[in-house]
Order: sequence, then structure tokens, then C-alpha cells
Amino acid sequence: ESKKIMGTKPDGQLKYTVADTHHTHASYKDGNYDGRYAWINDKINSRLARIRLDYFVCDEITELPNVQGFHGIFPDKRDPVDPAINYTTRVFCGSEFQVPVPNTGKESLDPTKYRSMFTCVDAETMEVRWQVMIDGNCDLTATSYDGKLTATNQYNTESGVTYPEMMSAERDACLFFNVARIEQAVKDGKFKTYGDSKVPVVDGTRESNKDPKTALTCTVSVPKNPHGVNATPDGKYFICAGKLSPTATVIDLSKVLDWFDGKLESPDKAIAAEVEIGLGPLHTAFDGRGNAYTTLFLDSQVVKWNVDAAIKFAAGDNAQKYVVDRLDVQYQPGHINASQSETAAADGKWLCVGCKFSKDRYLPVGPLHPENEQLIDISGEKMVLVADHPVRPEPHDFIIFKRELLNPKQVYSMDDFPHAVKELKDSGVFREGKKVTVKLASQAPAFALPEFRLKVGDEVTLILTNIDKVEDLTHGFAIPKYNVNFIVNPQETASVTFKADKPGVFWCYCTH
Amino acid sequence: ESKKIMGTKPDGQLKYTVADTHHTHASYKDGNYDGRYAWINDKINSRLARIRLDYFVCDEITELPNVQGFHGIFPDKRDPVDPAINYTTRVFCGSEFQVPVPNTGKESLDPTKYRSMFTCVDAETMEVRWQVMIDGNCDLTATSYDGKLTATNQYNTESGVTYPEMMSAERDACLFFNVARIEQAVKDGKFKTYGDSKVPVVDGTRESNKDPKTALTCTVSVPKNPHGVNATPDGKYFICAGKLSPTATVIDLSKVLDWFDGKLESPDKAIAAEVEIGLGPLHTAFDGRGNAYTTLFLDSQVVKWNVDAAIKFAAGDNAQKYVVDRLDVQYQPGHINASQSETAAADGKWLCVGCKFSKDRYLPVGPLHPENEQLIDISGEKMVLVADHPVRPEPHDFIIFKRELLNPKQVYSMDDFPHAVKELKDSGVFREGKKVTVKLASQAPAFALPEFRLKVGDEVTLILTNIDKVEDLTHGFAIPKYNVNFIVNPQETASVTFKADKPGVFWCYCTH
Repeated sequence: ESKKIMGTKPDGQLKYTVADTHHTHASYKDGNYDGRYAWINDKINSRLARIRLDYFVCDEITELPNVQGFHGIFPDKRDPVDPAINYTTRVFCGSEFQVPVPNTGKESLDPTKYRSMFTCVDAETMEVRWQVMIDGNCDLTATSYDGKLTATNQYNTESGVTYPEMMSAERDACLFFNVARIEQAVKDGKFKTYGDSKVPVVDGTRESNKDPKTALTCTVSVPKNPHGVNATPDGKYFICAGKLSPTATVIDLSKVLDWFDGKLESPDKAIAAEVEIGLGPLHTAFDGRGNAYTTLFLDSQVVKWNVDAAIKFAAGDNAQKYVVDRLDVQYQPGHINASQSETAAADGKWLCVGCKFSKDRYLPVGPLHPENEQLIDISGEKMVLVADHPVRPEPHDFIIFKRELLNPKQVYSMDDFPHAVKELKDSGVFREGKKVTVKLASQAPAFALPEFRLKVGDEVTLILTNIDKVEDLTHGFAIPKYNVNFIVNPQETASVTFKADKPGVFWCYCTH
Repeated sequence: ESKKIMGTKPDGQLKYTVADTHHTHASYKDGNYDGRYAWINDKINSRLARIRLDYFVCDEITELPNVQGFHGIFPDKRDPVDPAINYTTRVFCGSEFQVPVPNTGKESLDPTKYRSMFTCVDAETMEVRWQVMIDGNCDLTATSYDGKLTATNQYNTESGVTYPEMMSAERDACLFFNVARIEQAVKDGKFKTYGDSKVPVVDGTRESNKDPKTALTCTVSVPKNPHGVNATPDGKYFICAGKLSPTATVIDLSKVLDWFDGKLESPDKAIAAEVEIGLGPLHTAFDGRGNAYTTLFLDSQVVKWNVDAAIKFAAGDNAQKYVVDRLDVQYQPGHINASQSETAAADGKWLCVGCKFSKDRYLPVGPLHPENEQLIDISGEKMVLVADHPVRPEPHDFIIFKRELLNPKQVYSMDDFPHAVKELKDSGVFREGKKVTVKLASQAPAFALPEFRLKVGDEVTLILTNIDKVEDLTHGFAIPKYNVNFIVNPQETASVTFKADKPGVFWCYCTH
């Protein structure tokens, strides 16, 4: 079962044994988490994995076509058109590395012709719905609360392939996607496909999207190499942090929609504020009381700043002190999140920050140091550091939400497994020539069969059902030397297929 | 490099991708940890892994021949003969599952003829030195401070293959091995070999070891299905916990040596005490002040008891209150250890206990519950629970020792790697027909080559050296779609070999 989800090569070996996961986000309903799914990206292999939050297991992995370096990810929060769909039905995925499309080795190696794709995956079927081909790259992703807009910050509008090239422009961009228009274009057949992929790809390049009335995308400029784009809980703004600029850029979403409606002269008029907050700003969290918390990588700080005050300051009110507080963190913070920060129900209680260097905070354990996640109390005016926690490098993105939004199951439903061995007496060895099925029920502390015998050369499928109904009574099953080890939770059924190629006596045992 | 350590099949695939690690112990000098190595068992595949504690990496894995279910493990603390060798040179490994020896599928399936092996691995070369064939099984392992004795508790002296059979005898055993005599027997050629293995196997069965003067092994009986054997820090006793008996058995090592010298009438006369401590006793830790701390699985408690008082009580002094304290833990504790507990320098400060059920202690996260490690302050008369920590199931064995006994390195030595790419300018692509070597040095934030080109069909070895010397400046290297991802710590060199079978442009990037 695991191999099927993980994907195999023609010879049955796993297609990939490495991954590089960065961002996880969960499904929404009415602007808050609904506890159905979470998703996480694999940057190396451009895969999107879904986790069922009822059983806390990965149930689907989708490999995105035409892309490399799938990085940012965000579920939509409602449908842009149908008001009845007030929950997540799409997951948006940004690709960081521009490549030839298709990428068969026969294309031009002129990097200015490389493209990246912004991909929409169906939240239920996990099939790729559509892609938008763009110039420049995609870094992080955010979605609006009204379902109409999604955006990616772009640090490489230059389409460079080296650091100096990527850093040459003074301003890069936050690129907005008009979801309804894109889906209409797909419906209208205004798409191409590339290589082996059948996924419809629409044209989101700047050259083709200059007319607001028909544009699928809208480019708002932000200073040099922005890192991170986050939606404020009130649904009004996206905030891009500057990374190589000490600024945060506040973009007014209603004005971006105005631009698409032909009512705004230029996309940059949607910038409500662009204010200095500190050196190396990366990611931003929110407390639901109008404040933003941005990590400052170079300053090794979290800066708390008030969004409305920043907008007033940017409008010329120099008396506005938009920076509320600064807190030193240990050290070089990257990802940050607050309790319920990514929802309309941001509660302003806790902030967690992932620091990329721990230096002297932990005992030495060799060349690879632990990194440091810190918990901060943000319930008051001043931030208060509460606890450190060592983590394996490096601390990527995370979300924090209330326990009552989750209702995980403790026991599986036996009927979900068509091959379940429902009773101890159904256990046995069933042979059809060389194909042998070993059916096994287990009830603590023993398996139903004290032993089973096979012949060398048999192709064996072993099906194990845990018939215990008691919460947390998980069973394990291992066969020495046969590279077999798995668990079955209460009322769960799992199976494994192997070739009986090693003669002898083998003690199958419970590893749990 | 990793594949070589992990072991491969003839087709180059990893031989095993699963493992089941239970017990870790570290190397000794003068009865205390010396910070050189730690070892850990893999029960499924009967492998012993060594971890270098200077770099905190696994550098050797040895698969033990003739055994299944390698469970208990303990390094010796000094040589039994040579007083100059006051440090670990052997690691003893017990096998839990009795099997035919050899196990080729042609042997009798009469379980009373199955045997298990007690294995000695060389701590430096990681080669198997010798094995002792025994009747009954091996569970946990302990070693004496004088280097002369090692022992395993046996819960299946019945050689049963089902639970009722294994539980039929009222007493099982603690089986002692006379290390010097075994090695003399090997030197004298009194051994056999089995199957493909060239490892010398001596005869440690009860039938062949009745004469104390020549015996290699000594069987001390302990009540029904003991679980765990631990050496007291004063070097005097091994303690076996009863599991299915509510007792702890204290065995006097000097008397076991007396038996081997023909000075003790029967091995059971070495039992200094056998006292009731509670229901389901499993493992024992020590505070260096004469007290033992034993987990009680069924009572969900840790019981603190005084070893000398227990011996006096067993000798008839009914006034002795050997139980000092009991503490409820949450819930069903198994492994336990105290700071420096397994050394002569046990300091009696902290106790940690691995509980196999957490029940209501943590938020629900699906059918597989977290389990619970609890930290207990044992500096006073009463034990005080200090903290809970959730862990992935299940919490196996661990040791706790002082930071000053470890001196891990923060930066590698470039000269340790013969293929190091020592300077940025040494980077390049070197081709010999289809064999291509890509030499690459990296210095944050970039790799020395902005790009390298290969031809489809090339057999590529990529060698990457991190030339940064700054502590914690670890680099990563990944190739999308090529299943390549690894790290190089400062001044470290690593390599990967792959076939260039997918044409196109691929962005190699740092995953760290």
C-alpha cells in the first residue's frame, strides 16, 4: 500500500527515496481550518503530498508536470465564483526553478526562454487541473479569503541562473493570478499542452497580460528578491517581505481586483505601504489585532509592526510609530507562524519561530548542529520568549491551530479494507500455484497462526488485520532478513508482497 | 558512501530498508564512558551499527551470522585478562529467536533442536570474533566491571515457539559467560563453524557445561520470563527483573566466579536476594547511592528499592524496609535509565522512563498515539516527576551521560577524504569515455561551477567538498528527478554516482 502511494519505477523499486519538504498548509472552510487535509511540498521531485487528518496518514502524492523546484503551496479558501463552495477545493503550487518547457534536452539553453509554472491541483482528486506559464519564478504562495486571487512572490524576475543575475534588478514582483479568469480560459480552450503532459497550460507571461480587462495575471512590483507572501487575517492585504531590502510591502487586494476591472491605472497603485522594518525580512505572521510579526534574518530578530499604522505612515503621517516591538531570537530566523495566523480566526496567543542557527543554545552533537524553534508569548504588548526546542535542520514552515478544529479517529473502520481478515478463524495459507496468500488476523498478544509454511520461489502476499478494537493497541509485523516491517492500527488491514527466496525458519514478530 | 555502510544487494539496491533498533550503549574506559563509540542493534536483520561519537555518524554496520532477533547488546568494560586494556574492545550481542543452525530449510523443525547464539563483535574492526551456541534464548545483556563476566537473561529456557510454551516453566535463567575461558577455547581450536559463516562457535549448552572447572557458561535460575539484566554501579551484582514474577533477583558476581572456580556448590547459591517489588518488573537503573529503580509495567510505577536492604531482608531480617518509594508514571513503563546509571560514576540526579502508553497525556493525532518519556528528579529521598515528552512509538532503550565525557568535532578534516576537491579552481568535469567525474567545491552561498553539462548515458560520479571552515555551515546538494540529495558538513567530502538517463536542464540546489 505504501509503495503505491509513494510511486514506483517499472522494476517495482521506489521511484524516489529522497524528498525536500518545506511548506505545509491545511484545508479551509469559512476561512478557518476544517481538519480534513494537510498538504506538503517536495521540492526536489516536484511532488505534492496530501495528509488525511482523520488518520494522520499520507494518502496521495501527485508529481507536477513541467516544473522543477516546486516550493510555495497554499490551498484556496473558497471558490472565486460559487458562493456555496466555502471550503478548499484547489491547492496552488509555485515552481521556483525556470526550465525549458518541455524539458527534453533539445530546447534552447538561453535562460531568458526558460519558464516556470504556477500549478492548480484538485484538493479531492489530487489531479492537476491547470497550469499558468509565467516568466520569472515562483517562491512562496498565498491565497485571498474571497477565493478570487492567489499570488506568488518572485525573486527572479530577471530569469537569471546565477546569484548576481538574480539580484540585478532593484525591484522584483508579487504576481497575482485571477483564478476565475484562468479557469474560464481553460474552459474556452485557450490553452496548450507540453510534452507528455495533458495538463492545460494557459499563458500568464507579462507580455500577454498587459490588458487588465483580459489579463490572467497582474504584476505588482516589490523591492529586490522578496521572500515570502502572507495574507492578513482580515482578508485585506498580502504582505511581501523584502529579503535584500529592509522593507515590507503591503498590497491592497481590493485594488488588485480594481486593476483587473480596469479601474486602477497601474498595478503598483495597489501598494498600500512599503515601510522599513529591519534587515533581511523573510516571513510574516499575524495576531488578529492588526499586528504583523516578521522575521529579520540578518538582525536575528522578530519585529512586531502595526499594519494600519504602517499604511498611515506610508501615506505621509510621519508621527505613526508602526514598529511596536522587537525581540532578539537565537539565531537567524526564517519561518514564523502564530496560532491561527493563516486564518480569519488568528487569536494572537502564541508565536513560533524557526531559527536556522542555534550556535551556543544546545550541546554539541558533531558537525551538524541542531537548529532552534522558539516559542513566544504574543498575548501582550511586548513579545516574551517562552521556550527553545532543538530541531533537525532546517526548520521549515509549519502552522499552529486549535485542537478543537481536529477530530482524528482512534480506530480504523474494518469495512474500509476489502481484504480484511475479519476473524481469527479466517486466517490461513491459500495457494494458487506459486501465488500464495497468507491471511492473518492479530489480537494482542498473538497472531492467529502460530506458524505458516511456504515453498522457496512462492510469490507471497501477506494480509494482516488487527482485530483489536482498543485505542492505541497497534500491532507490528516484521520478517527477519526479508526486509518486511509494518504496523497495523486497531481495525486496520495492511498487506505486503514478497518472494520467498530465502529458505529456513523465520520468526515473524511484532515490532510495536 | 552511505550505501557502502548500509550494505547493498548484487544489483546495487540497498539490502535492507527497514530496521528495528532497541538498545544503545557507549564505549567505556575505567568504568565510565569515554566518548569514542556508541552501538545500536537492529533486531529484524540482526545487525549491529556503530556510531562514531566524534562526528555523530554511523561508520560501520555488521550483520551477525547464524542468528535471528538480535536484541540485547552491551560493550565490555575492560579485558578479562590484560589489565592494561581498561577500555571497551568487545561488544556482546544476544539473539532472541532460536533457529536451526545452520538455517537452510533442510534442518529438523523440532524446536527443541533450535539454538541461539551469544555473539562477540570486535569494537574496533566490527568483525565478529566468536559465538557461543546455547539452548534457551537471549534477551538483554549486561557486562561486569572487571571484564570477566557477561550475561543474558533468558525468558525462554523452554525453547518454546508459542507463548504458552515459553511461559510453562516456573523459573527461567540468567546465563553467564566466562569471557576468558571462551576465548581460550577458541584459541585452542575447540569450536565449529556453521553454514557460510567462518565465525568460530563454541558450545555453551547446559549439557556440555556442567563441570564448573571447564564450563564456559553458568546458569543461574531466576523466576518466570525475566525481562532485563542490569549491573550495579559498585560492580557487585547483576539484577534480573521478573516480568511474570513480581520479584527482582540480585545475583552476586563474586559467587558466580566462585562457581567457575569450583568453590560454590550450585549456581543458584549466587542469588543474594529475590524480593517482591511489584507487578510486571522490567528494567532497572541505579543512583550510585545503593538504590535501584525498577519499572513496573503492570503497576504503571517506578519502584525505588535499596539493594543492600533487600539482601538483608532476603537473609531473614524482616525489619528491613527495602522499598524506599513508589512513583506513578503515565503509563506502562518499560525502559528506564538514570544519569550515568550504567557506569561506576552513577550520579543519582536524573531518571528517565519510557512509557509505552500515553493515553490522555497528549492531543490525539490519529490511531497511532505518541508514547511518553518522563523525566524524574531522583536527587532526594522521594522521586519527583519533572516533565513529559512525547515520542514516536515505542520508546526503546537509551543512556544518559555527562556532556564533559563527549568531545564531538564541529568541522571535518579535509585530509580524511582522499578525493577532496580542495579548492574552488579544482572543480570541473572530467571525462573518460562514458565515465564522467564532476568535481565540485562549494563555498557559501554557491557551488564552484555555475553549471555542468553531461551526455545522456554518462555514468557520473559527482564529488562535492564543502570548503567552508565555519562551524555549522553545512551545505546540501540535490538534483531534481535524479533521486539525489545529500549534505556535506564543513570541510567534508561526499560523492554520489548516478546514470545520466533523463535529458533536460536540471537545477542542482542546496537543500540545507
